[in-house]
Amino acid sequence: MKHARVVHLGNVHSATERDGQLLLDNGQLVAEDAVSWLPPLAPTHRPRTILALGLNYADHAKELEFKAPEEPLVFVKGESTLIGHRKLTRRPAGVQFMHYECELTIVIGKTAKKVKCDDAHDFIAGYTIANDYAIRDYLENWYRPNLCVKNRDTCTPLGPWLVDAADVADPMALALQTTVNGKVTQSGNTKDMIFDVNFLIEYFSSFMTLQPGDLILTGTPDGVVDCRPGDVIVTSIERLGGLINTIE
Amino acid sequence: MKHARVVHLGNVHSATERDGQLLLDNGQLVAEDAVSWLPPLAPTHRPRTILALGLNYADHAKELEFKAPEEPLVFVKGESTLIGHRKLTRRPAGVQFMHYECELTIVIGKTAKKVKCDDAHDFIAGYTIANDYAIRDYLENWYRPNLCVKNRDTCTPLGPWLVDAADVADPMALALQTTVNGKVTQSGNTKDMIFDVNFLIEYFSSFMTLQPGDLILTGTPDGVVDCRPGDVIVTSIERLGGLINTIE
Repeated sequence: MKHARVVHLGNVHSATERDGQLLLDNGQLVAEDAVSWLPPLAPTHRPRTILALGLNYADHAKELEFKAPEEPLVFVKGESTLIGHRKLTRRPAGVQFMHYECELTIVIGKTAKKVKCDDAHDFIAGYTIANDYAIRDYLENWYRPNLCVKNRDTCTPLGPWLVDAADVADPMALALQTTVNGKVTQSGNTKDMIFDVNFLIEYFSSFMTLQPGDLILTGTPDGVVDCRPGDVIVTSIERLGGLINTIE
Repeated sequence: MKHARVVHLGNVHSATERDGQLLLDNGQLVAEDAVSWLPPLAPTHRPRTILALGLNYADHAKELEFKAPEEPLVFVKGESTLIGHRKLTRRPAGVQFMHYECELTIVIGKTAKKVKCDDAHDFIAGYTIANDYAIRDYLENWYRPNLCVKNRDTCTPLGPWLVDAADVADPMALALQTTVNGKVTQSGNTKDMIFDVNFLIEYFSSFMTLQPGDLILTGTPDGVVDCRPGDVIVTSIERLGGLINTIE
């Protein structure tokens, strides 16, 4: 099932997908463009930790002229960076290069501590899409995406849907695609991740406890281009839908 | 006033300090060692972002043989790292050097966006103490304290109290001290910070929104030593009290 959180007529609703429309928790069926979308996270499952992978696709590491990491290269993001589907992301004045990053995102469903790869699936509530924007001007080096790059307001669109893990048979075989104003600029597949979904759950839970609602943004393949004000960026992942964002 | 969150007889209470004891929200007066302490954060004000400064005291930067930064050197921590006063912090098996870091911690009280230095005080709810443990073995470089260093379970004791900003006349003139098993090993003063409290609020709020409950850990002065299992570490800050932690 596909779950969303939306604002309709001034009230926040949880919703599910029904024939291309939204079935609200009050029984109303409304069009996708008749609501304001929030990140698809229940208020009882606010993330305590948002983890994001750097350089987790060999081709993207190469694109950035960087050696692929031997251990996951991870940074933490604040919850305030998240915005919903069909929202605006600000490009700061005067920057030279700002790029999208289409990323399969794991939503943790159960408290996970010292979980093994083979059991990782049991701890995943589902999947969503993150667009983890980056601004190259502010990057000190690829190993340390600093706060000005990765923690700005509006820098992480998330959604539209949280899709139940049961509905994603193989998260390691999903096509990813990004379009800018309708033109395909990024095209990849989750099979090319260096550290896969199950490994990441084992790795993180070996030294920290993952809590329900925690997010893991698993990195992006190659094909990033500069985004300018007015550009409409759609980051899509097979089975999860398409996350629309506009640069302002 | 000094505020705490504690568990007493199985129930979570907010509490205030009264003559060296805890006045619970049910009117009971109990001893400080008769409760289990939680981080002093109201559930309505769970942090959305926990920011931590690296190398924010010139002497500590020098101690680590590192040049003082020209811009704040910041990393983000997950909420799951926090534990309360009088709790245990685990030293992983086989590591060579694990050190405490006594840090003045700002608790944000009001939504802060593009705030100027001169107005920063209005956005601070109060102050508490963090002990932001680090494990040198896992540090890739001083610029990028990685996840295994700064995001482990139990690695950030916080408390005991949240002290109202009104009760801290000058946050930039507070003595800090750490003792290990009763012996003073770290002694400094917040006046030696490179980037002070007001500047940090202006800096962060220039590109991100700070929310009520967000935390800023402002860095530690020099004088860090290796902590071994069984060691009792007390990180104290003038007016804020002493945060007790034991290594296991």
